[in-house]
Amino acid sequence: MTDAETRLTRKGRATRDRIVESAAAVALERGVQGMTNEEVRRAAGVSGSQLMHYFPDKESLLSAVIDWRAQAVMNFTQMAAKEGLDTFEGLQSWVDAYLDHEEACVSGCSFGSLAAELVKSETGLRGKVADGFDQWEELFRAGLQAMRDRGELKRSADPRALTNALMSSFQGGMLLSQASGDSTALRDALTAAMNYLSTFRSARSRA
Amino acid sequence: MTDAETRLTRKGRATRDRIVESAAAVALERGVQGMTNEEVRRAAGVSGSQLMHYFPDKESLLSAVIDWRAQAVMNFTQMAAKEGLDTFEGLQSWVDAYLDHEEACVSGCSFGSLAAELVKSETGLRGKVADGFDQWEELFRAGLQAMRDRGELKRSADPRALTNALMSSFQGGMLLSQASGDSTALRDALTAAMNYLSTFRSARSRA
Repeated sequence: MTDAETRLTRKGRATRDRIVESAAAVALERGVQGMTNEEVRRAAGVSGSQLMHYFPDKESLLSAVIDWRAQAVMNFTQMAAKEGLDTFEGLQSWVDAYLDHEEACVSGCSFGSLAAELVKSETGLRGKVADGFDQWEELFRAGLQAMRDRGELKRSADPRALTNALMSSFQGGMLLSQASGDSTALRDALTAAMNYLSTFRSARSRA
Repeated sequence: MTDAETRLTRKGRATRDRIVESAAAVALERGVQGMTNEEVRRAAGVSGSQLMHYFPDKESLLSAVIDWRAQAVMNFTQMAAKEGLDTFEGLQSWVDAYLDHEEACVSGCSFGSLAAELVKSETGLRGKVADGFDQWEELFRAGLQAMRDRGELKRSADPRALTNALMSSFQGGMLLSQASGDSTALRDALTAAMNYLSTFRSARSRA
């Protein structure tokens, strides 16, 4: 948090949070291009000068939206993996949280679709997108590392490589399902990713 | 091709093609948001009225860019898979065409990154994006089906599901590598996808 943010009054912080949450919702539905000042003001119920006060330009608002989306998707990931991301059951619960809800499969990943729109920007936003992915992936890396340390995954399992494979399947499957308006691609992608992960299940874990 | 397009003179068609190719290059580098009339005019070396003549609005130009990118990525896919997309060697050649060139891994998929930017548009562009993926994926589905028919893949192999898994790994890996500016994610994703495909290799094929 910056000094300026620390000095915000409680009411000011609530207004700022409402703007960020509203902007994130507009960006998810209409894309970054559709996230205009007018749409954000209307969704957040603030004036143009209030919006300008907290976010003097679109880049500063997008920066806050990236942080907000990254935190939200990490919270969701931990909540969805009921048994924890360091168990096969927990990882499957996370997968099922999407596959059990058609709408969740075809709406696009709330963080990934934002990332895909911003990754070409010449500003510092690409770095923020990369940091967001990195923090999110760390949840999976830590979980898979713990499974390997406990001997549930074979020694040949590389937690980093498996995390990249799992996250890639998720992001790519989300994009294909969003494009087609059908959950099949995400279902096939995540099923393959979990089956592949299972090939690293140790004999001890199968017992 | 529409009637209007058929009636274009040869010179007119060359101008139109140059506009589409230039617009595709601008969109790849700067994103759809950065694909402004002025940038396209400059890149293609045409006047504003010429641009307007062929593409009266941004949607009509984007529609042509989607077609152009889809065709280009399909041509590249078939060229890269030297031994054909109906062999393990050919599929690996396609993978290697990316992994052997760091730049190809971090620049983002030329079709997928365009797709990710347009998939939220409320116009008919989402349908065109879906068609592009479908035609591209058909190359892989047909190849995997031929491998299954010849007995190189087990009967349990589902060409459609395996294609979705492979394309998802590719698209997601491209996004993660583009965000991080590092080829590792794409490498891990495609290695996992090819290893997973290999689990469907028939005993006969291994012989």
